[in-house]
Amino acid sequence: MEVKSRAPGKIILAGEHAVVHGSTAVASSIALYTYVSLRLSTPSSENEESLKLVLKDVDLEFSWPISRIREAFPDYVALLSSTPASCSGDSTKSIAALVEELSIPEAKIGLASGVSAFLWLYLSIQGFKPATVVISSELPLGAGLGSSAAFCVALAAALLSVTDSVSVDLCQQGWHSFGEKELDLVNKWAFEGEKIIHGKPSGIDNTVSAYGNIISFRSGNLTRMKSNVHLKMLITNTKVGRNTKALVAGVSERMLRHPGAMAFVFSAVDSISKELTTVLQSPTPDHLSVTQIEEKVEELMEMNQGLLQSMGVSHATIETVLQTTLKYKLASKLTGAGGGGCVLTLLPILLSATVVDKVIAELESNGFQCFIAGVGGNGVEISFEHSS
Amino acid sequence: MEVKSRAPGKIILAGEHAVVHGSTAVASSIALYTYVSLRLSTPSSENEESLKLVLKDVDLEFSWPISRIREAFPDYVALLSSTPASCSGDSTKSIAALVEELSIPEAKIGLASGVSAFLWLYLSIQGFKPATVVISSELPLGAGLGSSAAFCVALAAALLSVTDSVSVDLCQQGWHSFGEKELDLVNKWAFEGEKIIHGKPSGIDNTVSAYGNIISFRSGNLTRMKSNVHLKMLITNTKVGRNTKALVAGVSERMLRHPGAMAFVFSAVDSISKELTTVLQSPTPDHLSVTQIEEKVEELMEMNQGLLQSMGVSHATIETVLQTTLKYKLASKLTGAGGGGCVLTLLPILLSATVVDKVIAELESNGFQCFIAGVGGNGVEISFEHSS
Repeated sequence: MEVKSRAPGKIILAGEHAVVHGSTAVASSIALYTYVSLRLSTPSSENEESLKLVLKDVDLEFSWPISRIREAFPDYVALLSSTPASCSGDSTKSIAALVEELSIPEAKIGLASGVSAFLWLYLSIQGFKPATVVISSELPLGAGLGSSAAFCVALAAALLSVTDSVSVDLCQQGWHSFGEKELDLVNKWAFEGEKIIHGKPSGIDNTVSAYGNIISFRSGNLTRMKSNVHLKMLITNTKVGRNTKALVAGVSERMLRHPGAMAFVFSAVDSISKELTTVLQSPTPDHLSVTQIEEKVEELMEMNQGLLQSMGVSHATIETVLQTTLKYKLASKLTGAGGGGCVLTLLPILLSATVVDKVIAELESNGFQCFIAGVGGNGVEISFEHSS
Repeated sequence: MEVKSRAPGKIILAGEHAVVHGSTAVASSIALYTYVSLRLSTPSSENEESLKLVLKDVDLEFSWPISRIREAFPDYVALLSSTPASCSGDSTKSIAALVEELSIPEAKIGLASGVSAFLWLYLSIQGFKPATVVISSELPLGAGLGSSAAFCVALAAALLSVTDSVSVDLCQQGWHSFGEKELDLVNKWAFEGEKIIHGKPSGIDNTVSAYGNIISFRSGNLTRMKSNVHLKMLITNTKVGRNTKALVAGVSERMLRHPGAMAFVFSAVDSISKELTTVLQSPTPDHLSVTQIEEKVEELMEMNQGLLQSMGVSHATIETVLQTTLKYKLASKLTGAGGGGCVLTLLPILLSATVVDKVIAELESNGFQCFIAGVGGNGVEISFEHSS
C-alpha cells in the first residue's frame, strides 16, 4: 500500500518584518504543494532491507541499509509516535554520521538539513522499518514560500497515517483531511523537523501548512481563522537569494536610528494586518462584492508594500515586478523577508486570462518564475492507494 | 538703468501630502532661478508709451499702450507700494479685459493667470509708468518646483527695488540680497501675485523663494531655518502633468477608508520631517561628517518615499526614476504632489561626475528632463546694471 500526502506552502499576506517589532502579521496557505509518497516494504529476503529517500525535483536518491541505521543508533529506544520529541544531542550526531556518508553534490549541500529532518521524523515515527519515500514539490526551495515546512508536514502526515497514533479511514477515496487532533500531532512533529532545518523556526510555516487557511500572529501568539474570500495570487519568484537575518537586522538598525518614525511605520502595518483579517473574514456576498473585497485587499497590499519600502527591505528585482504589474493596474507586495525572494500580485477574479498571460510573459522575460495559486485553502491531506 | 532680479524655485524635501493632515513638512530653495529684467522707459515722444512684457522661454511678447491701461483703470488710485493689497473685484475685471485683448496662443493659455499677476503687481507698485519687463526662467512650468512663486517674487523684488519702499544700494556690484524688512515686503506682494495665479496658495512657495534656505511648516505655521549642509539634488521632471487636487483628494479618501493605518503613516512622516530639520541644522563638520549627513538624508528620503507610496501618490514614471537611480545606489523620492511631477535624487558630494552623467543619460533616455541644483541657498537677489 502507498500512502500519499500533500502539504501546502505559505505566503505572508501582511506584516512581515513589522511582526518582529510587535505588529500583527497574516499568513495564509497557498495551493502549491509538497507531495510525499510512502511505501513500506514488504518483508523480503532477496535484497538487503533499506530505507530509500527519493528527492524527485533535484534528481537525488539516497539509500541506507537498515543494518547501517541500526548500527548508527545502538541505544535506540522506540519513541511514541504520539509524543513528538526533539532530536537529542546523541541522535543529532548519529544522523549527522548517516548524512555525511551520502554523496550529496556540493551545489545541493543545502539539502543536508532536510535529509537530517527526514531521518529524525522517519526513525522517530516508523523506527527501523524498510521503506521507500518519494518527495516532489511545486514549491521553489528557499524562496520564502514555506517549502521546508510543507516537506516536514507532508512527511509527518504520511508517516503518522500508518501508525496507531492517528485514526484514518483507509478506504476513503482521494485527498482527505485529518481530524483536528491528528492535525495537532502532525503539526507538532513537523515543528520538530523544522527545528532541525531552521534552528529556531517561528512555527508559523508548519502551522499554516498543517491547518491551511489563514493565520494571524503577533508576539508569538497564533490565531487561526477561516477566510470567506477566494483570492488568487500571482507569485513571482525573483530568484534572488535573500539573507533573512541581515534583512531583519537592517530593519532593527533602522529602528534604532529612527525610533519615532519606525514605531509609527510598524503601527501602520499592525493596522493593515488587522484590517486585512477583518476584510477576509467578512461574510460574502452579503456585505461586500468580491470585487469590493479585492479592491480593499489591493489597497492594503499597496500600503503594506510602501511601508516595507520605508523599512528598506525592497530590492531592484522586487521593484521591477511592481513596475511591471503596475502597468496592468495590478497591486503587488513583496512577501516574506524581501531583498529579493517572492512578490505577490492579486489577480482579480474578473481579470482576463489574456492579461494574466501577458503579465506572466513579461515577468518571465526578466528571468523570474511565476506561479498562480489560490490563497487560504486546505492544509495537509492524505490519500491511500491500494495496489491491486 | 536696468534692474535685474532672480528668485529661486523650491522643492519639498519631506512631508508633502501628510502636511494636509497635520504633519510637519520641509521645503527648501533650489539654485534654479526665474530672472526678471526691468527697464523703465525714459520719456520719449517718438513712440507711444507702452508697457511691454517679454516671456523669453515661451517666445511671447505682450505690449499694452499706457493709454489703454489708463482707460481700463478709470478710477485708479495709486496704491502705496509699501502696503501689499489684494486684487479687488473691479481690478480683476479690468485686468481680465487687458489680458483678453492679447492673442495668447491656445496651447499657452495657462500663462494668462501669470500675465494677470504681472499686471496687478506692476500697476500696484509702478502705476502707469512705461517699461519693458523681460522674464526668463530655469524652472520648468507646472512641475511643482515653484515656478509661479519665483516669478512673483522676482517681479515684486525688481519692481520694489526702484521705489522708495525699499532702500537698496544702487552702486553695489553683482547679485545682492535685500534686508529682512525688504524681504518681508517682497514676500507679501509676491503672495498677492500667487493668489491671482493659484487662488488659495499656501504661501510656502513664495516664502521659500523670497527668503531662501529651508522652511518647515505645519498647520499653516512656517518656521524658517538655516541649513548647515550643502546638499546637491538631481531633480528629474517626469513631464507627466499632475492633478494636485485629485491626488490630495485621493489621499483623504484613503484616510477615510483606513483611518488607523493612515494616521500612523502621517505620524511617521511627521517624525521624518522633524528629524530632517535636525539633521540639516546639525553643526558640521564637528558632529557628523558630510557623508554621514548625506546618508541620514538618503535614509529619510527612502522612508518618506515608501510612506508616499503607501498613500497611493506614486506613478509609473516616478517608479522608473526610482528604479533607475537605485541601480546606482542613489536614494530618491518624489517631491510635491506626486502622480508624475518631479523626483529628487540626492547626489552625494563624493559621487563621481561619470556616475552622475550616466544616471542623467539613462533618465533622459526615458524622456525625462534632469536638473542639478544646490539645496537651501539664498532667496531673491537683485543686481543693477548701469548702461554707460
